[in-house]
Amino acid sequence: MPEDSMTKTRSEHDLLGDRNVPAKAYWGVHTLRAVENFPISGQTIGQVPDLVVALACIKQAAALANADLGLLKPARRDAIVAACEEIRAGKLHDQFVVDQIQGGAGTSTNMNANEVIANRALEIMGYHKGEYAHLHPNEHVNQSQSTNDVYPTALKLAAWFGIHRLILAMGTLRGAFAEKAVEFADVLKMGRTQLQEAVPMTLGQEFNAFAIMLGEDELRLAEAAQLILEINLGATAIGTGITAHPDYAARVCARLAEVTGVPVVTAADLVEATQDCGAFVQVSGVLKRVAVKLSKTCNDLRLLSSGPRAGFAEINLPARQAGSSIMPGKVNPVIPEVVNQVAFEVIGNDVTISFAAEAGQLQLNAFEPIIAYSLFRSVSHLTAACNTLEDHCIRGITANREKLRLSVETSIGIVTALNPYIGYANATEVALEAHHTGRGVYELVLEKGLLPKARLDAILRPEELTRPQKIVA
Amino acid sequence: MPEDSMTKTRSEHDLLGDRNVPAKAYWGVHTLRAVENFPISGQTIGQVPDLVVALACIKQAAALANADLGLLKPARRDAIVAACEEIRAGKLHDQFVVDQIQGGAGTSTNMNANEVIANRALEIMGYHKGEYAHLHPNEHVNQSQSTNDVYPTALKLAAWFGIHRLILAMGTLRGAFAEKAVEFADVLKMGRTQLQEAVPMTLGQEFNAFAIMLGEDELRLAEAAQLILEINLGATAIGTGITAHPDYAARVCARLAEVTGVPVVTAADLVEATQDCGAFVQVSGVLKRVAVKLSKTCNDLRLLSSGPRAGFAEINLPARQAGSSIMPGKVNPVIPEVVNQVAFEVIGNDVTISFAAEAGQLQLNAFEPIIAYSLFRSVSHLTAACNTLEDHCIRGITANREKLRLSVETSIGIVTALNPYIGYANATEVALEAHHTGRGVYELVLEKGLLPKARLDAILRPEELTRPQKIVA
Amino acid sequence: MPEDSMTKTRSEHDLLGDRNVPAKAYWGVHTLRAVENFPISGQTIGQVPDLVVALACIKQAAALANADLGLLKPARRDAIVAACEEIRAGKLHDQFVVDQIQGGAGTSTNMNANEVIANRALEIMGYHKGEYAHLHPNEHVNQSQSTNDVYPTALKLAAWFGIHRLILAMGTLRGAFAEKAVEFADVLKMGRTQLQEAVPMTLGQEFNAFAIMLGEDELRLAEAAQLILEINLGATAIGTGITAHPDYAARVCARLAEVTGVPVVTAADLVEATQDCGAFVQVSGVLKRVAVKLSKTCNDLRLLSSGPRAGFAEINLPARQAGSSIMPGKVNPVIPEVVNQVAFEVIGNDVTISFAAEAGQLQLNAFEPIIAYSLFRSVSHLTAACNTLEDHCIRGITANREKLRLSVETSIGIVTALNPYIGYANATEVALEAHHTGRGVYELVLEKGLLPKARLDAILRPEELTRPQKIVA
Amino acid sequence: MPEDSMTKTRSEHDLLGDRNVPAKAYWGVHTLRAVENFPISGQTIGQVPDLVVALACIKQAAALANADLGLLKPARRDAIVAACEEIRAGKLHDQFVVDQIQGGAGTSTNMNANEVIANRALEIMGYHKGEYAHLHPNEHVNQSQSTNDVYPTALKLAAWFGIHRLILAMGTLRGAFAEKAVEFADVLKMGRTQLQEAVPMTLGQEFNAFAIMLGEDELRLAEAAQLILEINLGATAIGTGITAHPDYAARVCARLAEVTGVPVVTAADLVEATQDCGAFVQVSGVLKRVAVKLSKTCNDLRLLSSGPRAGFAEINLPARQAGSSIMPGKVNPVIPEVVNQVAFEVIGNDVTISFAAEAGQLQLNAFEPIIAYSLFRSVSHLTAACNTLEDHCIRGITANREKLRLSVETSIGIVTALNPYIGYANATEVALEAHHTGRGVYELVLEKGLLPKARLDAILRPEELTRPQKIVA
Repeated sequence: MPEDSMTKTRSEHDLLGDRNVPAKAYWGVHTLRAVENFPISGQTIGQVPDLVVALACIKQAAALANADLGLLKPARRDAIVAACEEIRAGKLHDQFVVDQIQGGAGTSTNMNANEVIANRALEIMGYHKGEYAHLHPNEHVNQSQSTNDVYPTALKLAAWFGIHRLILAMGTLRGAFAEKAVEFADVLKMGRTQLQEAVPMTLGQEFNAFAIMLGEDELRLAEAAQLILEINLGATAIGTGITAHPDYAARVCARLAEVTGVPVVTAADLVEATQDCGAFVQVSGVLKRVAVKLSKTCNDLRLLSSGPRAGFAEINLPARQAGSSIMPGKVNPVIPEVVNQVAFEVIGNDVTISFAAEAGQLQLNAFEPIIAYSLFRSVSHLTAACNTLEDHCIRGITANREKLRLSVETSIGIVTALNPYIGYANATEVALEAHHTGRGVYELVLEKGLLPKARLDAILRPEELTRPQKIVA
Repeated sequence: MPEDSMTKTRSEHDLLGDRNVPAKAYWGVHTLRAVENFPISGQTIGQVPDLVVALACIKQAAALANADLGLLKPARRDAIVAACEEIRAGKLHDQFVVDQIQGGAGTSTNMNANEVIANRALEIMGYHKGEYAHLHPNEHVNQSQSTNDVYPTALKLAAWFGIHRLILAMGTLRGAFAEKAVEFADVLKMGRTQLQEAVPMTLGQEFNAFAIMLGEDELRLAEAAQLILEINLGATAIGTGITAHPDYAARVCARLAEVTGVPVVTAADLVEATQDCGAFVQVSGVLKRVAVKLSKTCNDLRLLSSGPRAGFAEINLPARQAGSSIMPGKVNPVIPEVVNQVAFEVIGNDVTISFAAEAGQLQLNAFEPIIAYSLFRSVSHLTAACNTLEDHCIRGITANREKLRLSVETSIGIVTALNPYIGYANATEVALEAHHTGRGVYELVLEKGLLPKARLDAILRPEELTRPQKIVA
Repeated sequence: MPEDSMTKTRSEHDLLGDRNVPAKAYWGVHTLRAVENFPISGQTIGQVPDLVVALACIKQAAALANADLGLLKPARRDAIVAACEEIRAGKLHDQFVVDQIQGGAGTSTNMNANEVIANRALEIMGYHKGEYAHLHPNEHVNQSQSTNDVYPTALKLAAWFGIHRLILAMGTLRGAFAEKAVEFADVLKMGRTQLQEAVPMTLGQEFNAFAIMLGEDELRLAEAAQLILEINLGATAIGTGITAHPDYAARVCARLAEVTGVPVVTAADLVEATQDCGAFVQVSGVLKRVAVKLSKTCNDLRLLSSGPRAGFAEINLPARQAGSSIMPGKVNPVIPEVVNQVAFEVIGNDVTISFAAEAGQLQLNAFEPIIAYSLFRSVSHLTAACNTLEDHCIRGITANREKLRLSVETSIGIVTALNPYIGYANATEVALEAHHTGRGVYELVLEKGLLPKARLDAILRPEELTRPQKIVA
Repeated sequence: MPEDSMTKTRSEHDLLGDRNVPAKAYWGVHTLRAVENFPISGQTIGQVPDLVVALACIKQAAALANADLGLLKPARRDAIVAACEEIRAGKLHDQFVVDQIQGGAGTSTNMNANEVIANRALEIMGYHKGEYAHLHPNEHVNQSQSTNDVYPTALKLAAWFGIHRLILAMGTLRGAFAEKAVEFADVLKMGRTQLQEAVPMTLGQEFNAFAIMLGEDELRLAEAAQLILEINLGATAIGTGITAHPDYAARVCARLAEVTGVPVVTAADLVEATQDCGAFVQVSGVLKRVAVKLSKTCNDLRLLSSGPRAGFAEINLPARQAGSSIMPGKVNPVIPEVVNQVAFEVIGNDVTISFAAEAGQLQLNAFEPIIAYSLFRSVSHLTAACNTLEDHCIRGITANREKLRLSVETSIGIVTALNPYIGYANATEVALEAHHTGRGVYELVLEKGLLPKARLDAILRPEELTRPQKIVA
């Protein structure tokens, strides 16, 4: 008769008494209580693989460091390391069942990891789950640690993983803009300020600006990411390092760098580092910057492609889907639109993170779970947004060259180029007359005898209009 | 040999050409393209049952209204209605596969619904999926409709469902506070302003204030919810009602009210109603108000229960889980903490919604999907937060009555009650001396002969201190 | 020899000892210390006349109520009332010198008022400033009061004054939009969704939507303003009414209503009312809604007037100033631009207010000064924005009728009107062909024989395109 | 007969026609129209001396560069330089009368500067105001410039000035915290996580964390300030440099560095630099970080000083003013409270700035005036907040040493130190018993025979509890 794995249980004990947990569960009593306490979002920490992997890396590094210092027996070390390696390889993520939005300053996340790793390590050692006398979630998996150093370190490591994927995606998107900048290098158009035609530029310059903006954001993001390399492992409860060996902080940091390949460093002051969420605030602030700029870029793309007949209609975005359930043939800028919306989300997340960071009290910030929830969303949604924008939009953009050329030829704004020759006051008169009569600047200047034709032609040569030029008497 | 349902496909056609969709899928080519275009959050609209049900209600009402007006044949009407009823009963939600964060102003959500309903209706009529000649997603399921009236109406209906669960949860939580207010009605304590002891009050008054605050928020939320009863069905593309019968708007509104039991009304001006997101901004603003107040309440609960020995320690929250992976015996206020975090999320969501609403252009707001994503999260997380706060925290709160009584007896703040008798200047002197010497106000007043003992006793009777009192000469 | 009024001083005493204040100053030692403590913004409460007047109204009402109850002698009452009347008439505002951004929960504002009124009342009674034995800032001007009931009541009253000016300004602006709606009632144009041409509408419908949106906001604002009519005078320190006569709360409320003409009511629970900032959060939320909608409207105005030659160029905003220091003849939409910016400020202020409201603790919110600072700015800047928008922009808008007419005639979007007759699939083919060839929908439909000419003409009659129409077989 | 300077006028001409301006005014017709168009905040740009000075520096540098390139005659250069020097010395600031909140992308600010400088320079040259034929606001003062490069450069320079004052103020405040950290180095107390006692630390460690947090913020702010050194002078209208000499950009940058001593650099791509507000967003994001941390610190100070008798009462803030208009002897933490409020304002300003930055379109961000308004406020209010916090609060803080010592001795939290010796499970039992009986951990451990007395004493030596320690078998 097959055992009923769903109903078979084992009993576990904690501060509040005994509770049965499913016999098959790798998690234990602490996790069980957390699941009951926090039925908020329905989204578990297991759904954030970066975080689960980060936790496993830290537990592995801690076990190695504890063993290095003679505080953990090799057999336990090896079992913990083996369990962590499995998790890092993608196994057991379904055992990380605590809600991402949780009280308790991350204790439930840390204990979920401690319990899963302990129980898997027990199996590896040949014991049954729950036989904690042989290997204990708190005393061995969590040895020399506290939630208050493990959890923020895990958040930082997970954010590091995600941010680097985002930087890659931004780089690829930048490349797409840069390619278009080259493709459109010779397409003359009117630049606009305040939605009014200003002076000529090339469409290549316009797309190049998009590329450069992204490039700067990549640099800023990479700088901000450096801040989250500073970890507080060894701080234990509040930064004083209580229960930790004096050499542990340095040891575990070295081991974590070794395990992950990430150049983590230990904060100079662990009391400060344990309570401080400044690095998260800064990273989120830079993500907001990225969002603001991406959104501005997408606004421009939507504006430049507005049409098809009565808008700007300067560029065409690739058609990606039928735009309407009622209007036949309508095609909309759906890809920039989704990027805008991700940007709005990221900006809102930044406010959430500011609130949570400000609410920290004394030696700890108890609200890091919502910081993590918001930050991870910002990073992953921005990454997806960059990818879809690059792949489904930028690569396929084309220019309406003829329309753009005409807009420059008939523009009033080219009069600006004549300022150094005919003066601001004369130029204003020409502009006004052009505006009221619908006539061209070129003909009006000639008619008024303000400049000889050869001179005028020289000044208004397209290649001269889009860069600084010497004023020749 | 069983057919390979995963690889078997049918071909569908749209504006952009032909695409194969899985033969088993109820969704079609529009949905397919949307899934490819928007791989953002990994969370589908099917994971928001309120929204799926709302869409089904609207499609059902539209079919009935179209048939009422002689525009839809009874056989098609009946099939659509039957399909919608199934969806409302919880079926086929897994066929709503578009990402919640999507470009296209909700067209993909609307088309996902049109396709699923059409294909299920086709089956009900005895046809195969994809045989749209018999019943077409656009021409019949979407008849007299546009995404631009269906989608905002669906969001409003879904929000209505969710908000009413939230109001219920708030009411239950309020009840828990009110019960504690009664239980603690006779517990005298020092009230505090600016974290400094002020004047006496009862713990019952303190808990009653929490209850009343919630009660006011329920009223405000109910008022705001009224705003989302105003729908724009019949507006079609931009509010002019193009393609819709003149009687359709009134008809479909009546049918929707009948189908849902929700007293929806048609907006007076459909052009305005189609572009306006004011109702969502307002609802979100009120949700933010709820969040702000709930967070303040939880801050207070955490503060009043701070301790166990060196804090305020006035009340005890029920222990819900071990508080620390390292500190034995530590118990933390994990339930209020999770509520605080939900509040921070809701406040951030409000900023996202403001951004998205502001970004609407001309006859439509293309960013309603992120409004929906944020609003639904705010509503459901707040509901969960209220429930866990009520069930896992408030019900089990106890008071440290002895400590509270002592704090009043030894307080300096009771000197305020003597103001009308000894004057503000004398009272200040007594307070200063009490502060510097550590002595009691009572003994100092007597010692200085400022009031006779009987009079002093009368003024300082506990029951007199917590309410207005007549000043007797 | 003239006395040196700048250096002549009088000595005043408080909790912390003696301090000299200028002999000419109506304010006293409490104000002096506050000025020294809060050198933050350089903007005094005296620069918010509504607030100064509101404080004077409250002090006047309190003096009357105290006298009604036999607690204040008629001579003192009369002097206080006379001083308050002077302040309400605009005098002595320069004596309200405390910085608007201040710690202390408004105590410095309240004491500034108490001191100025006391000293002016002393003069009226024939005494010198500072002779507080005859009339004391705390014991008489502040009698039966606390900062904690006076200050929030003053904020509410001041906000009420300002909000009603705002509602008036919104109404005038709405009127300007409504007039334009009438003027443009016959101007056919293409409506747009997602910046792409959709289906026809009139410019009148477009402007009417702006008017209606404002009208709804006026209603919402008026509703929210009702919430700030609920005051907590009589609460004194924490809502228990300590030191206040049992009949005082009702009496002072009646007197305040009488003095101001504003229908204030006393909150049902004064403990709750004293700590609750919900009404400010709600009002600010609604102001944010107004800002979001105004900003959207101004975005539309800037978009519709984009040009002059290569933009939408559908309407012309009146020229208000030269648009550029370098580009001759350039004219920019400067008025909508300034309104956008006020909107952004208001949205940011709402976040500030949310933060401040959330930070309240226990029986009081100590952060009401920044709520006031932000709220008053939002109200007054929005009022100014509405006025300048109405007066300097909307009234002078003209339409480019010819261009708009042409855009409809050459549009692809009119194909939507044919849906009910030729089906969504056929209509899509026509639209695609029109898009790729640049040809017109009208000629293509005829060429393909999809509809007879007479029928097509009937369907596409302009007056039919902008409202629902019966589908005739 | 004295001339009536108020009514005497001169006539000026612009795009829109002729207008009279007061004869005494240094500003002209452009400024006049702007004043009429933007009656929003009542706060003029002249009230931001950093901005006025920055504008004068730029105009001076431009005149020098233009003359260097042979484009401006020496006489005009000298007059412009002399006028700018006067303004930099503090003169004529009252002539900068445009409202800080203005439409037009800063054109009105730039023209106000051009007009004032031109008219003052005319006087210096011996002409009358308004004789622009001799020296023209646009053609000479604004030569080779556009608002679109002058204005953002001026904002950056002004922000640079302000931020460096802020960094100084933060440094001084940090010094005050650091001094207190030394003073309190031997004061043992209980650290707290989640408002519950955790494990011992020193009050010195607690204050040191405040100092370190500030120090990190100073570094971040200095980094962000580097970003605003990148200027776009030479970009003219949209970054293409139209009307500017090819060598002008480099020349004016060198001249500006020389004039100001600020190491400005020219952006690599001027098209991008002209439209990009990323640097402002980043600086504001870091200011928000500073605000979040300062607010957290002030929350802690208020909490630690809560009392006087029934709160934490661990430290005493210096009394700065009477705390209440009704409660005699009450003293409140007014200085931290005002800092909290400034922080809330800064966080709100960051949202405003994000909105404004996102709203930029194509080649320019027209909303920089509200960015400036918000950013300058954030910087100056934070500076004032740091100064008052340092001077009026931190310097005077004292510790309640006896109370703190007792709280450690009677704490349950010290049981954590025994974890490595008696195990987490035993330690939990001791903690629970201590909690339920009110007895001490020390006695319970001895009574249960878990550790010998000498060993226990060694582990619990105060100096061992606040740092990592070797676990000795």
